[in-house]
Amino acid sequence: MRYASYLNQEGQPTWGLEANGELLDLGPSGADVGPSLQQAIQEGLLSAPLEKDEAPAQPVEGTTFLPVLSAPGKVICIGVNYRSHQEETGRDSVGKPTVFARFSDTLAAHGADLPIPAESSMYDYEGEVALVIGAHADHVKPEDAWNYIAGYAAFNDFSARDWQRHTGQWTPGKNFPLSGAFGPYFMSAEEVGDVTELVVETRVNGEVRQRAAVADLIFDIPAIIEYVTAFTPLAPGDVIVTGTPGGVGLFMEPPTFLVPGDVVEVEVGKLGTLRNVLVA
Amino acid sequence: MRYASYLNQEGQPTWGLEANGELLDLGPSGADVGPSLQQAIQEGLLSAPLEKDEAPAQPVEGTTFLPVLSAPGKVICIGVNYRSHQEETGRDSVGKPTVFARFSDTLAAHGADLPIPAESSMYDYEGEVALVIGAHADHVKPEDAWNYIAGYAAFNDFSARDWQRHTGQWTPGKNFPLSGAFGPYFMSAEEVGDVTELVVETRVNGEVRQRAAVADLIFDIPAIIEYVTAFTPLAPGDVIVTGTPGGVGLFMEPPTFLVPGDVVEVEVGKLGTLRNVLVA
Repeated sequence: MRYASYLNQEGQPTWGLEANGELLDLGPSGADVGPSLQQAIQEGLLSAPLEKDEAPAQPVEGTTFLPVLSAPGKVICIGVNYRSHQEETGRDSVGKPTVFARFSDTLAAHGADLPIPAESSMYDYEGEVALVIGAHADHVKPEDAWNYIAGYAAFNDFSARDWQRHTGQWTPGKNFPLSGAFGPYFMSAEEVGDVTELVVETRVNGEVRQRAAVADLIFDIPAIIEYVTAFTPLAPGDVIVTGTPGGVGLFMEPPTFLVPGDVVEVEVGKLGTLRNVLVA
Repeated sequence: MRYASYLNQEGQPTWGLEANGELLDLGPSGADVGPSLQQAIQEGLLSAPLEKDEAPAQPVEGTTFLPVLSAPGKVICIGVNYRSHQEETGRDSVGKPTVFARFSDTLAAHGADLPIPAESSMYDYEGEVALVIGAHADHVKPEDAWNYIAGYAAFNDFSARDWQRHTGQWTPGKNFPLSGAFGPYFMSAEEVGDVTELVVETRVNGEVRQRAAVADLIFDIPAIIEYVTAFTPLAPGDVIVTGTPGGVGLFMEPPTFLVPGDVVEVEVGKLGTLRNVLVA
């Protein structure tokens, strides 16, 4: 099953299930499984039988999407986690995952026009796979890690490289408003199956810039969950963004940053394609 | 006025006003000004006349404190922001504030026994002044910055130096549970007056380890607010922790980390003394 958060035909926020080019409304305006996809994941409602018969449907085409989850308690990002990206950055190997935080008010929707911050002249994409936590997770052992994942979605960790590099800490460059595109769909871990087979591909105006399989992660998903939950407990609905492959604009020859009008797509196999147009 | 969050004599969470060695209950069990100090700041209730006459009082002595604010939307920390600390770290001067994020579930109370994480053998203190935002703040000019501050409290930004240095990003070392001691009191900006005159002093088992005036900040409070609000909007109740002076355990000769039984106090003038005992 693939789920989305979106506006219903009355323009009200809801969420639902995607099937055959339609969205079936599972929010309060529809089958009322839960108030939001965020809360449905937090409260474990997705595993309950869904009353799809009574869900109003609308075509995906023309629907305004919302960030697939609206308010994760924590959005944790992993940096330098594909060999191809590590090599282009010139960074040494490190023995632990590189971790930084994103505020959840930075999340943006599939399909939205996204502003290039006026403060940045080095705005860049980072296509990634995000995982969503499905159970309280504290000091998780790697062999148990898969049990704590509710599902996955595509993510674009837009980065203001100038602000990321003002100091050694990346937080400012990773937290401009609407810089964390997230969606279009959340797919349950069960339906995804072997996530390592998914391929992340980022295109700018149709040109492939990044492409790697999740299998190429330096720190794989169990290692990430083990490391993160050793210092901070995670709750259902929290998000970990797992890292980006080589091919970011910063390391192109010459460096090539996003400009208004650019169309950026992050396609992650059956999770779908996250598409955004950049605006001034 | 100094305010605190604490347990009332029935053991229920409340908040109130400190006066003459007593706490006057302004929560739902008392004068009911608002449900929590966090919400009172968020909703601007502290500027309303307080019905103190009807507030039950209890002695400060023997009261169990809570983190002075329970759930800030953002806790933003500034690193390497006193010359004395910059010098001991050996870091170069940088032209911008160093910014990292703390999850709000790391906040801890004055008076609480705080665990040294089993995962860290390099646990350290950082005495600081925290400011609390009082109004929606976005692209604030330095000359207007003071208008966006509700007040101040002492903070101890406990740091697992080993985890802080696993990679270039400090997030893991700054986010262990109960590593952000915050309190005992919140004092309104109006009552604080000139915050640059406050002196931060950190003591371990009575020995003075850190001492500096807020006037010694490299990036002063208006510069911090200008920089932070240029990349992320702040809301009432958000917190900025402004940096720590020289004298942390990491740079003592030899390096000296916290051990069970250590008593750490962060005294910030009239804001009060934040005291915690470390436990295994």
